[in-house]
Amino acid sequence: MAGNTWGQAFRVTTFGESHGGGLGAVIDGCPPGLALDLERIQAALDRRRPGTGKLVSARREADRVEVLSGLAEGRTLGTPIALVLRNEDADPSAYAPFRDRYRPSHADFTYDAKYGHRAWAGGGRASARETAARVAAGAVALQVLESLGPVEVVAWVDRVQELAASVDPTTVAASAVEGSPVRCPDPEASAAMEARIREVRAAGDTVGGVVRAVARGVPAGLGEPVFDKLEATIGAAMLSIPAAKGVEIGSGFAGTLLTGRAHNDPFVPGPNGGIASATNRSGGIQGGISNGMPIEVAVAFKPVATVFHEQDTVDHHGQPVTVRPRGRHDPCVLPRAVPIVEAMLALALVDAWLRWRGQVGAPPPVPLHAVAGGGDGK
Amino acid sequence: MAGNTWGQAFRVTTFGESHGGGLGAVIDGCPPGLALDLERIQAALDRRRPGTGKLVSARREADRVEVLSGLAEGRTLGTPIALVLRNEDADPSAYAPFRDRYRPSHADFTYDAKYGHRAWAGGGRASARETAARVAAGAVALQVLESLGPVEVVAWVDRVQELAASVDPTTVAASAVEGSPVRCPDPEASAAMEARIREVRAAGDTVGGVVRAVARGVPAGLGEPVFDKLEATIGAAMLSIPAAKGVEIGSGFAGTLLTGRAHNDPFVPGPNGGIASATNRSGGIQGGISNGMPIEVAVAFKPVATVFHEQDTVDHHGQPVTVRPRGRHDPCVLPRAVPIVEAMLALALVDAWLRWRGQVGAPPPVPLHAVAGGGDGK
Amino acid sequence: MAGNTWGQAFRVTTFGESHGGGLGAVIDGCPPGLALDLERIQAALDRRRPGTGKLVSARREADRVEVLSGLAEGRTLGTPIALVLRNEDADPSAYAPFRDRYRPSHADFTYDAKYGHRAWAGGGRASARETAARVAAGAVALQVLESLGPVEVVAWVDRVQELAASVDPTTVAASAVEGSPVRCPDPEASAAMEARIREVRAAGDTVGGVVRAVARGVPAGLGEPVFDKLEATIGAAMLSIPAAKGVEIGSGFAGTLLTGRAHNDPFVPGPNGGIASATNRSGGIQGGISNGMPIEVAVAFKPVATVFHEQDTVDHHGQPVTVRPRGRHDPCVLPRAVPIVEAMLALALVDAWLRWRGQVGAPPPVPLHAVAGGGDGK
Amino acid sequence: MAGNTWGQAFRVTTFGESHGGGLGAVIDGCPPGLALDLERIQAALDRRRPGTGKLVSARREADRVEVLSGLAEGRTLGTPIALVLRNEDADPSAYAPFRDRYRPSHADFTYDAKYGHRAWAGGGRASARETAARVAAGAVALQVLESLGPVEVVAWVDRVQELAASVDPTTVAASAVEGSPVRCPDPEASAAMEARIREVRAAGDTVGGVVRAVARGVPAGLGEPVFDKLEATIGAAMLSIPAAKGVEIGSGFAGTLLTGRAHNDPFVPGPNGGIASATNRSGGIQGGISNGMPIEVAVAFKPVATVFHEQDTVDHHGQPVTVRPRGRHDPCVLPRAVPIVEAMLALALVDAWLRWRGQVGAPPPVPLHAVAGGGDGK
Repeated sequence: MAGNTWGQAFRVTTFGESHGGGLGAVIDGCPPGLALDLERIQAALDRRRPGTGKLVSARREADRVEVLSGLAEGRTLGTPIALVLRNEDADPSAYAPFRDRYRPSHADFTYDAKYGHRAWAGGGRASARETAARVAAGAVALQVLESLGPVEVVAWVDRVQELAASVDPTTVAASAVEGSPVRCPDPEASAAMEARIREVRAAGDTVGGVVRAVARGVPAGLGEPVFDKLEATIGAAMLSIPAAKGVEIGSGFAGTLLTGRAHNDPFVPGPNGGIASATNRSGGIQGGISNGMPIEVAVAFKPVATVFHEQDTVDHHGQPVTVRPRGRHDPCVLPRAVPIVEAMLALALVDAWLRWRGQVGAPPPVPLHAVAGGGDGK
Repeated sequence: MAGNTWGQAFRVTTFGESHGGGLGAVIDGCPPGLALDLERIQAALDRRRPGTGKLVSARREADRVEVLSGLAEGRTLGTPIALVLRNEDADPSAYAPFRDRYRPSHADFTYDAKYGHRAWAGGGRASARETAARVAAGAVALQVLESLGPVEVVAWVDRVQELAASVDPTTVAASAVEGSPVRCPDPEASAAMEARIREVRAAGDTVGGVVRAVARGVPAGLGEPVFDKLEATIGAAMLSIPAAKGVEIGSGFAGTLLTGRAHNDPFVPGPNGGIASATNRSGGIQGGISNGMPIEVAVAFKPVATVFHEQDTVDHHGQPVTVRPRGRHDPCVLPRAVPIVEAMLALALVDAWLRWRGQVGAPPPVPLHAVAGGGDGK
Repeated sequence: MAGNTWGQAFRVTTFGESHGGGLGAVIDGCPPGLALDLERIQAALDRRRPGTGKLVSARREADRVEVLSGLAEGRTLGTPIALVLRNEDADPSAYAPFRDRYRPSHADFTYDAKYGHRAWAGGGRASARETAARVAAGAVALQVLESLGPVEVVAWVDRVQELAASVDPTTVAASAVEGSPVRCPDPEASAAMEARIREVRAAGDTVGGVVRAVARGVPAGLGEPVFDKLEATIGAAMLSIPAAKGVEIGSGFAGTLLTGRAHNDPFVPGPNGGIASATNRSGGIQGGISNGMPIEVAVAFKPVATVFHEQDTVDHHGQPVTVRPRGRHDPCVLPRAVPIVEAMLALALVDAWLRWRGQVGAPPPVPLHAVAGGGDGK
Repeated sequence: MAGNTWGQAFRVTTFGESHGGGLGAVIDGCPPGLALDLERIQAALDRRRPGTGKLVSARREADRVEVLSGLAEGRTLGTPIALVLRNEDADPSAYAPFRDRYRPSHADFTYDAKYGHRAWAGGGRASARETAARVAAGAVALQVLESLGPVEVVAWVDRVQELAASVDPTTVAASAVEGSPVRCPDPEASAAMEARIREVRAAGDTVGGVVRAVARGVPAGLGEPVFDKLEATIGAAMLSIPAAKGVEIGSGFAGTLLTGRAHNDPFVPGPNGGIASATNRSGGIQGGISNGMPIEVAVAFKPVATVFHEQDTVDHHGQPVTVRPRGRHDPCVLPRAVPIVEAMLALALVDAWLRWRGQVGAPPPVPLHAVAGGGDGK
């Protein structure tokens, strides 16, 4: 019933509030025998961590991941892998004013409405810090994916407000993303975005935008009919990220402007005797199942709700009051959202892969259906 | 593992191909003692049914629902409710040319890639006919919702290609939707959409667009933290509908253009001592949990893939061939998608409600957190 | 939440009351491409059916199974397989006296306590008729098992009251079971059981006993650590059968009388370079995981609650009354429980097998760990 | 797919090997607002801990539980509660001889067969140490149960080999259990059991037996029809405990010796206008649903597999070798199994309770169906 577990075959259960002992993830169902690179898990966490740049929150936490179980001699046992991160920098005093006042567009009110008892310090379970556990688990998922096939997962900041980048999803490299302070691989757009973020920060305001992601090398056949279509599980994965309010697969909303003739992706012979499509408006998914083309996703993140201005709201008696935040916050969550989007995409894909393998049993037909082709997910 | 079940507390398992004995749904976890109105289930199915107008597919099926179990003396027993629909008009011959040829942007290829054995007649499990089972189950879910609180669920066609309607989600009435042949409650937009659909039909082409939905009267407190945020489960519900390629909650992608100051929804005192928000860019969901404001969703449907023109594709050996469909197809799926979107929204909400009740146990705090206010979900 | 689904990878959802439209099962997650023998499903149902002998209930139902979905050209599609059985002989009048009176040791009272609304005719969902759906699904599961490896599942009546059979689980054949009117392959015990059942029937009384089952040819590796140990899932499978009140794996309760030295199963070299054990007190499961030896289970069935004598009870106001049943009932449920036990064992094993394949991915290491050896599960 | 999660509404996921960083449990779905007594969790762990007496293993571990999340100001938040226990005394060297040799009737071989990579030190995930995480979670579950109603859960050692105690499940007190060094509340039997355990310990051998448990004060209505009958979920809970090979509900196997007339439990008027039964051979469960009478369970634990004698076995190449254990082991697991059985019973009941509340929504009808009466579960 409770919603802190992701996946069915590769199951991730996370826990932890922003302030308290710590947070973490338990991965159940990981294939055994995988030599897990713990440094890559730590590196993924470091990418998500605040305090590493001028553009993001000043909160400093080492976020050293500790693996409590599931490994022996460096290889996965097939038993649960517990990943724990300690909360080291947990000063709740900055949040005392919000104990009885509901910050607009935060989760303060809804948690109270649901549970009647709330961790008011730092957002509790609704804090973005929760995503660290996903990123750690996602870094495991990615390694499992890579052991199953030549899969690459890359995300990037594609738009900040109206400032849009021009990025080719079939070729964009992770290194190009990391080379940008805002994680936008289009240098020109990156510079504009950076300037915009500094500007709104100076104004005590915040911005949102769009993160895009691509998974290349995913074989045809992933995703379940009907309710667990790959669009649906990837969509849920993305909309479970804090501040996400929209998601698109392939052509998404823009695709609705075309007619069917213009929108359809013609099948063509692919490399190595496989089958590909000449365009990729389907975003690599047809009928809820991957078709071997790059899987393309876009996620809309609303502007950060914490703005450094007095705002109207109510207290927990419903009486009008005002709030003005203090403390540490990002003016733009998007650069840090990039590793989170990658993690959730990896988690969605690895679960679909293992589910497929359970039912169908065949080795993933990568050679048979290997595809390529110029993607066109816009 | 397999993906034909929706929900955790109110679980719906569907079955059935387009051609074959029939299709249906089994609902497990329905609250007992509810006097179920079977005519409303049938009415919902009739709204989804093809062949009822000039604008939609000519396939004619009675789609009479039969209830095999779960009811005694007209009231639910709390045991599984099995709903069965027979396939009455099942002539597979029109599909024979596609047995070995993959129709572009259909699920023919991906089902073959996944399973290696495919129901080639009529799309099989990937047929839109599958959604009849959801609509039947959704009609039960809606009655359960109404027994829990004063909930209203309304969906409508909000856009066909670039032709956008102007609709107020806080007041739009189901009767206004049904009064339009394209299920668009804005008469002017409705007329333009109707003309467009006739036009593309004449050209052997198809169009897509956007369906919006609102759920009013939902109490604050529904949705689970982290992975089962209400945005995520509603998003998955929508993206599990055939041809859906994008989803937005509240302000969605458009909200990313605003700054945080402009986007935040100030809390204000609500009616009956409750708490409301002055605007509703959050779409009724904050931190993954409903806040008592109207829940607002938009779903992008790609243009129908079946166009009446010769198209390039490959056969199952990967060799270039062409296909040209015959048979019955909608030029625009949106009017029939309206009851499907309503069904999936009802299914997502009722499951969240029962899960909440299980964990927290309190009667839904409708009076305490009852809210209202001018929604502004665009 | 609701409990009408079995399994995670091979999921079976059943529905139906004893009186009403019908009952059935939906199987989700069946491997695709399997040529399903529908006659074997029907044959399994016929074995469970009442009215086929002097020793069992006189209710006559054709129990013709209809497959509504999930098959094309005789082979499984990987999509849900819906199996439906109509209720043909449904006269509720015999049950009218029990509408307000709780039959002792039946589910009348507990269903009322749980749901507040009850299908009083024929036991409703609590009727043994519900098991027909399991038997149908189990017959599919068995065919899937056989497609995965050389698996045999055999159950038999091992004891009626104190009348115990002597049966070797490593060699007992299904034909020997079917050759006995009470499904006991030990001819001497069979005759004694038959006499006992006639005797208690004449006295208007009923008896219980023990059904044993064995699964041979199951590879080592099935079962999940900790909560889903194979003992636990098989145990739950058995205890979910109506009237089952106890279950044993391997040596069970009798094994508690031995010391560890006497109880341990020494490993020995097996056939084909595999590993076996010299004895099988573990019943084929160690640490919750199959070890390749025959899996041995025993299930205790209490005596049938419906006795043809006046009995003290209360009505639904809690007032003392008496009841005396009419209608059709078995004096001994065990012969008909045999196919149900086989079905549940097959369902437990096929789910464990597909889960294992999903996580570990290897083809079942039958050759590597193939085992044999004289079982000694008593 | 993977099996390290228990429950649907009150979900417990455990992790950890005997040697490694540590182990723990994540509880998802705990009702919010509960003032959790952490000392009771620790006390439960102390009862399970080895090294506290002459009769049990000499391994010494503080097993101090740490709560990482899910609490604020001492009360549950409704978010996941993470409980972590460090491994402090982890010397794998004693296990080096077993790295390549399969100890008879242990899980060494089956884990290798399943995963191909095994934590050979101390049994890894199959170690009894795993149960510490369950006991911690069970101590939370028990407190939740007590907040829902006047529930008492008591387990005791009922038999060691053939040495049987005489205990009345309707009155047995936890204090009487704890007063015995072997946790048997019958003083005479306790003394005999203690002598037997010392005797087999001196002989380098081990013994098994039966633990019984009762849950009093459970309302009528818990348990789900068909697959999740309360017998089935309690049975699975018990059979998931290491070394458990049999389980009985109510009269169990002994009940099969009676006729229906002798076995049925007549309903009688209960206290406070409720309904009770004059006997309790049903063990508090009828038709899979609790009837308000004491729930009675018995669990068979096989003798401990680690005996201090040379034993025949094979190595991982299948070659005959011998093993002789060193290190720390219990001659009899039963006294320590008592808190584990209590924990699993509490976990099964709390999950059933929350599931029921989710579906039916009513406050538990304790007053309406309150029952009492002399239990007779033998």
